[in-house]
Amino acid sequence: MSSKQKRFFLSEEEIPTQWYNIQADMVNKPLPPLNPATKEPLKPEDLFPIFAEEVSRQELDQTHAWIDIPEEVRNMYKYYRSTPLVRAYGLEEALGTPAHIYFKNESVSPVGSHKLNSALAQAYYCKKEGVTNVTTETGAGQWGAALSYAAKVFGLEAAVYQVKISYNQKPYRRLIMQTYGAQVTASPSMSTKAGRKILTEDPNNQGSLGTAISEAIELAVSTPNCKYTLGSVLSHVTLHQTIIGLEAEKQMQKAGEYPDIVIGCFGGGSNFGGIAFPFMRHNILDGKTTRFVAAEPASCPKLTRGVFQYDFGDVAGYTPLLPMYTLGHNFMPANIHAGGLRYHGAGVIVSQLLKDKLMEAVDIPQLETFDAGILFAKAEGIIPAPESCHAIAAAIREANKCKETGEEKVILFNLSGHGLIDMTAYDQYLSGSLQNYVVTDEMVNENISQLEKIV
Amino acid sequence: MSSKQKRFFLSEEEIPTQWYNIQADMVNKPLPPLNPATKEPLKPEDLFPIFAEEVSRQELDQTHAWIDIPEEVRNMYKYYRSTPLVRAYGLEEALGTPAHIYFKNESVSPVGSHKLNSALAQAYYCKKEGVTNVTTETGAGQWGAALSYAAKVFGLEAAVYQVKISYNQKPYRRLIMQTYGAQVTASPSMSTKAGRKILTEDPNNQGSLGTAISEAIELAVSTPNCKYTLGSVLSHVTLHQTIIGLEAEKQMQKAGEYPDIVIGCFGGGSNFGGIAFPFMRHNILDGKTTRFVAAEPASCPKLTRGVFQYDFGDVAGYTPLLPMYTLGHNFMPANIHAGGLRYHGAGVIVSQLLKDKLMEAVDIPQLETFDAGILFAKAEGIIPAPESCHAIAAAIREANKCKETGEEKVILFNLSGHGLIDMTAYDQYLSGSLQNYVVTDEMVNENISQLEKIV
Repeated sequence: MSSKQKRFFLSEEEIPTQWYNIQADMVNKPLPPLNPATKEPLKPEDLFPIFAEEVSRQELDQTHAWIDIPEEVRNMYKYYRSTPLVRAYGLEEALGTPAHIYFKNESVSPVGSHKLNSALAQAYYCKKEGVTNVTTETGAGQWGAALSYAAKVFGLEAAVYQVKISYNQKPYRRLIMQTYGAQVTASPSMSTKAGRKILTEDPNNQGSLGTAISEAIELAVSTPNCKYTLGSVLSHVTLHQTIIGLEAEKQMQKAGEYPDIVIGCFGGGSNFGGIAFPFMRHNILDGKTTRFVAAEPASCPKLTRGVFQYDFGDVAGYTPLLPMYTLGHNFMPANIHAGGLRYHGAGVIVSQLLKDKLMEAVDIPQLETFDAGILFAKAEGIIPAPESCHAIAAAIREANKCKETGEEKVILFNLSGHGLIDMTAYDQYLSGSLQNYVVTDEMVNENISQLEKIV
Repeated sequence: MSSKQKRFFLSEEEIPTQWYNIQADMVNKPLPPLNPATKEPLKPEDLFPIFAEEVSRQELDQTHAWIDIPEEVRNMYKYYRSTPLVRAYGLEEALGTPAHIYFKNESVSPVGSHKLNSALAQAYYCKKEGVTNVTTETGAGQWGAALSYAAKVFGLEAAVYQVKISYNQKPYRRLIMQTYGAQVTASPSMSTKAGRKILTEDPNNQGSLGTAISEAIELAVSTPNCKYTLGSVLSHVTLHQTIIGLEAEKQMQKAGEYPDIVIGCFGGGSNFGGIAFPFMRHNILDGKTTRFVAAEPASCPKLTRGVFQYDFGDVAGYTPLLPMYTLGHNFMPANIHAGGLRYHGAGVIVSQLLKDKLMEAVDIPQLETFDAGILFAKAEGIIPAPESCHAIAAAIREANKCKETGEEKVILFNLSGHGLIDMTAYDQYLSGSLQNYVVTDEMVNENISQLEKIV
């Protein structure tokens, strides 16, 4: 309960007007995505049948470091941005650490997570290009809720394929999407070829992000005036999320500090890249030595135990081939509560950065993430999303190291969303029934060995 | 999607440092609460066995218009205050109204509602006076969550009696309280005399706020070093909530407008009084003519159909006798989703103000409130609490009147909390199973007729 300033905001005039494209500044650029049919490097036009044209161009742009945020998107950002940068005095006190811990609170967005930053951009570009319908997939439902609301804002119809286990376990998120007016279908479903194939082979299949992506893409390419949108992994999504780090950079200036360590939880990479890349820019260009730590679930350890390899983004093989750290697109992650992190691969930018040791990764067991989440809730009042608990746990590990060494390091993490829709997960934790999931080397190797024939 | 400024904030230096006590400025002061044993006007000391001493003094203070907010409370306010004042351009557009609609967004508090404003104050005073344990009641769980977190902040143990129907229907809020470390018991319970009496007579009793209050008070007075806290109705709670209106007053100045109409939903009155009283001050002192509208559920219409009469605040008759608009303390409201509004009486200040026609009240059927909530969610992105939907519905009524007359009135309402924990209510609405509840004159008269013998 320090009397010093706790929260740092930007005025509407100070909110960044451009996103940051780290690809332009990378010395080793990401390898090109490949057209799955020809195995040739992908051109933007190859993506036009699936995505809005503007985001297709953004996806492959390795030239322009700064991309203007359209005025219509900036106007909508102003409804919830800048999000607060918070000095976590309560957490510091609870840990007894000399570290200075800051978090960027993206949970204050109307849909409860950072996902809206890209949903608004993608829906806007679709609208501008005459699209009337958008599809997407969602796991825990954070992205689906964001896209449903963004579609409503720009007058589009939204169809969302939700991973079946989340659809059934987390009815609240489905209801939120429906409240915004979206059509929500449990995936795998009988409404697509990809879904029917899986259900025929495995009627009790509980779904995965990879499967839901296949279904949403199939609906998009088979429906007139309909485009697909994606909530993470791809470079244009991460581009839109850099608003997080760009704001944080200005806010840290107001706090009079600069981060020694920047941390984000890791599913596909957009939340991590969003907070990290604007600071990483200064490592690349200005000789800063900030460490960047991606926190992934121990049950889905693509960064820490996967291979760097071309792979598909989805289960059915509809997407371009991406050069990524992957566990293989058939890897079926355990049913952890952090549904947004249950994905087999990492985005191409992050994959290249990890390969080049410009960032680090840690994998964290489920129980440790909820230990961290409960401690954070009691100390800071905000109940974090299970995904965000991974970032908190990684921050706590670093803060505890500082306690041992006495170093006053400045730690910044992204609180990607709140956990108010995930209270059943906390229920399991509090009642002692929550468990860790072990991924054996056999599980990893089996899926990875299937990859070698792809490229 | 106007490009004009949407949100108005205060810097930490601009956040008010005093609460406003309207009792000091009222021409007709509220009648005194009475000691239930002696029927004598209550003295602060009479409340000391139940409440912290400082809030007992605040409760009966009709002299001091401004009360300093303790520094420790102000420091905690800074974690989420100022809350945004938002110009609801999206809602205006959806309604096609010339009215300017603003809302104060209290849903951004870490516990999701305005309740934290008083919980922090009450927990702080308890701590300062050497109390170790606090008790309270909660309906939907907004207040219980706030008190649980506030207790954790100041190192107190919290025990919460939650109305049984909410305990069972809304497990998420119970889990939030437990995540903060509170003990939560369904009310009526077998742990108190008051609870046992009710369960013996009616084993399936689903509980009410009045019953839960009785249980919490009984636990407080029978436990060493334990005090009771209350989330609404009483004057000191409303005093703490005036931070809402005091901030809004400064924020409206930044927006360059002054409200013609101020609206709050109405359970016991603290949220309504919190937003209204700082503006009402200028009606009393400066000749302003703002209208103040309390929006109550049609199924619990104490302001629109109750009587002005001394009554108990709880079912068992443990509380002081309060001069209030009431439906009788045995009135059992229908199981509407707006659990926080299911209370038989109104606070003494609001009751006097209504009697003196310094404010108005409207009662709104449940379906209309959810019509309003869905429209608001689609237009502004925020899913409102069922309680707050009452304020939105009343604001929409006023905005539609402006549409008819062409008047550009300035309407301000309090968005007291978000509805993310109440999605089952939205589920019922979306599936067509939500209903209105009719309160007959017989139901009202039966309970009111029992009151005459009290004083």
